[in-house]
Amino acid sequence: MRQVEELMRAQADEHRPELRAALHHLLASGGKRIRPTLGLLAGNMLGADPDKLITLAAAVELLHTATLVHDDLIDGALLRRGSPTLNASWTPAATVLTGDFIFARAAKLAAETDCLPLMRLFAETLALIVNGELTQLFTSRGIASRENYDQRIYAKTASLFEMCARAAAMISPVDEAVVEAMRNYGYQVGMAFQIVDDILDFNGQQVEVGKPVGSDLLQGLITLPTLYYIEEHPDDPDVQALLNGKVNANRGMLLRLVQSIHKSNAISRAMQEAEKYVAQALRALADMPSGIERQALEDLARYIVDRRV
Amino acid sequence: MRQVEELMRAQADEHRPELRAALHHLLASGGKRIRPTLGLLAGNMLGADPDKLITLAAAVELLHTATLVHDDLIDGALLRRGSPTLNASWTPAATVLTGDFIFARAAKLAAETDCLPLMRLFAETLALIVNGELTQLFTSRGIASRENYDQRIYAKTASLFEMCARAAAMISPVDEAVVEAMRNYGYQVGMAFQIVDDILDFNGQQVEVGKPVGSDLLQGLITLPTLYYIEEHPDDPDVQALLNGKVNANRGMLLRLVQSIHKSNAISRAMQEAEKYVAQALRALADMPSGIERQALEDLARYIVDRRV
Repeated sequence: MRQVEELMRAQADEHRPELRAALHHLLASGGKRIRPTLGLLAGNMLGADPDKLITLAAAVELLHTATLVHDDLIDGALLRRGSPTLNASWTPAATVLTGDFIFARAAKLAAETDCLPLMRLFAETLALIVNGELTQLFTSRGIASRENYDQRIYAKTASLFEMCARAAAMISPVDEAVVEAMRNYGYQVGMAFQIVDDILDFNGQQVEVGKPVGSDLLQGLITLPTLYYIEEHPDDPDVQALLNGKVNANRGMLLRLVQSIHKSNAISRAMQEAEKYVAQALRALADMPSGIERQALEDLARYIVDRRV
Repeated sequence: MRQVEELMRAQADEHRPELRAALHHLLASGGKRIRPTLGLLAGNMLGADPDKLITLAAAVELLHTATLVHDDLIDGALLRRGSPTLNASWTPAATVLTGDFIFARAAKLAAETDCLPLMRLFAETLALIVNGELTQLFTSRGIASRENYDQRIYAKTASLFEMCARAAAMISPVDEAVVEAMRNYGYQVGMAFQIVDDILDFNGQQVEVGKPVGSDLLQGLITLPTLYYIEEHPDDPDVQALLNGKVNANRGMLLRLVQSIHKSNAISRAMQEAEKYVAQALRALADMPSGIERQALEDLARYIVDRRV
């Protein structure tokens, strides 16, 4: 992981000092590095070449970082994980270009894994993520549909987890069945990760999560806990108002709804759903040929639902 | 070229209808398609596989298109080539993401050429272009230095011409010396192309160029004709004002300077410089092994300086 960090930081060397400062700021503001961790553990388990694996892990985290830079610009977010975003101090122009630069460096690292199918997968995953963001932009908020939610969290989160685990297998000496098992593992863990994130948005302390409690719903975004609450309390007047598209009309109503959901059964139902995905991830691991040491990836899958931030 | 157009347009199929509409609008608003033309001619000359060549040409033009989308957003430009830009009617958010999407599709096409060194070159060229734009953003305008100008037009334009010609050779059955000759040809033609663009900014009719005459200088950007004018008229009070950083102070002064440059010797000196680059491009072609039919690329190099728009 230390080598991944160094490789990421080195990507702006020989470029403008402002770029270097921006990249270091972005990388220093933390993040759990869950994606590169997933990639490293998967690749180590399967016997990937360490140098290629480090390169892949850095490429994935930089791709993630670049999408966050453009996301924060789009949302006008001034904080992420409690640190100022790039657009909080930079012009939109510099922020757009810094995101582009990080995309370019991520693509270059992906190419350095010397694996063409991986490169194609990388580009397809980027298209998928961006298409998902555009869908969120163009469709009205307040859609209460599980299908819509599943598609959204796949595009936003699980697609990159899936890519990362699959790519780690692709650069390992394993057959297609193992690559597919790892893809499936990544997908399941990614879905669970985003569901837990959406739960933490209702439960977490602002200082931990880095944004106000209930911020998704306050922005009109309906996540799994809200979906379950709607299912169980169809007559709640606040639910009625939400479904009638009055989502932006009344902040007091939304704050009350956040509290109602927080205290309701919906949170634990959503957690059960996350655990179901984790169980499927563990099953994907169990399906792999014997002789592979699965412990680290089993622990990672369990950490996804146990984490508090 | 028809197949390149079709391949580019197909890149938003199976994605959001708004994306498809945006991509088709961007591609319909024209452009000379000089980069894919260069790629196709170079690859045909060297015996590249036609499918790969079409894929490469589409990748290069889409990369160019994506950078224009972000550029226009950054500049707040409402017209390009006389057509409304994307950001003229879309939100900044949708414009950023559409640019990202087109980058992703360009990268995917580049990966489909099945040539890893090409993929690395593609990613490096994107980083170079973006780094150049950031340099332009972070350094003050009104820098009267030939070195600065050369670096700027290399990053902005010649790097992609260079990449395109080099990549066409990379997917052709030729040796390293030919790849290098083609890289050099692309570089020289790209430098000439941007110099002629900068000349046309002083000469062209607004309707042809799609922006007001002298628009670069009016924005404080010093190009080759201005550099030569400064060299020959150091005592012109308008030159003095420009060099003293009063570039944004007085639009009347700048308009007068645009007229002075237009009528001066600086334009023909800049054209001689462009012709010098074209001569070097022709020399790069002449250095290649005999038996290669160079006519089309010779014509293309001459067209670069003869074009009126």
